[in-house]
Amino acid sequence: MTARRRGDLFDPECPTRQLLDRVGSKWTAMCVLVLDETGTELRFSELKRQMSGISQKVLTETLRALERDGLLTRRVEPTSPPRVHYGLTARGQSLAAPLRQLRWWAEENMPGVDDHRRLYDRKRAR
Amino acid sequence: MTARRRGDLFDPECPTRQLLDRVGSKWTAMCVLVLDETGTELRFSELKRQMSGISQKVLTETLRALERDGLLTRRVEPTSPPRVHYGLTARGQSLAAPLRQLRWWAEENMPGVDDHRRLYDRKRAR
Repeated sequence: MTARRRGDLFDPECPTRQLLDRVGSKWTAMCVLVLDETGTELRFSELKRQMSGISQKVLTETLRALERDGLLTRRVEPTSPPRVHYGLTARGQSLAAPLRQLRWWAEENMPGVDDHRRLYDRKRAR
Repeated sequence: MTARRRGDLFDPECPTRQLLDRVGSKWTAMCVLVLDETGTELRFSELKRQMSGISQKVLTETLRALERDGLLTRRVEPTSPPRVHYGLTARGQSLAAPLRQLRWWAEENMPGVDDHRRLYDRKRAR
């Protein structure tokens, strides 16, 4: 019997913590969530519009990292000029569920966290 | 009727995306997960030992940010020298569920992601 390979977040030698860091970052999360909600492939310009605030450079880097990890497909349509379409792989789709939960938590708790920060900073300023 | 306040990840003016970025980062996630799994308060040295690889400086910053957000309690025991105990607030505990899911995803998918990266880099190197 072969042991099932699996990462370990608490092992400093294991790259799982870097993976978590990246998939839990705002741009990666937003990109996966947009593609998952749309349910189809999107072009660069459509992604950029929906992920409001992202720069061209950061979106390019985000997409390349997701493609390298096997979470994103990049399909080039042989038109002139070529059109590039981005979609989620099955593994990328499997990431959408935990990210939806994290998004839900952040949106739900943002007002309470904001109130607490104000209180904390006022106490500290005294 | 008052509208229920709620953040919006896709609004560039809303601080939700910064909150998601931070709570989805490896050290915040590990800190919340350790405290949630332990189920009791921990001292700085115990947290540092369990979050192997973290520096004293980064742990201090991580704890302060969590405290400022109202996710962590900091209790000073009036001994000599004073002992400081860290624990999760109810809001901090509510973050543990989505983080457990994200951790599970990262640990489960790390080997597959790693394989895909190797393949991708080999193709690019040709």
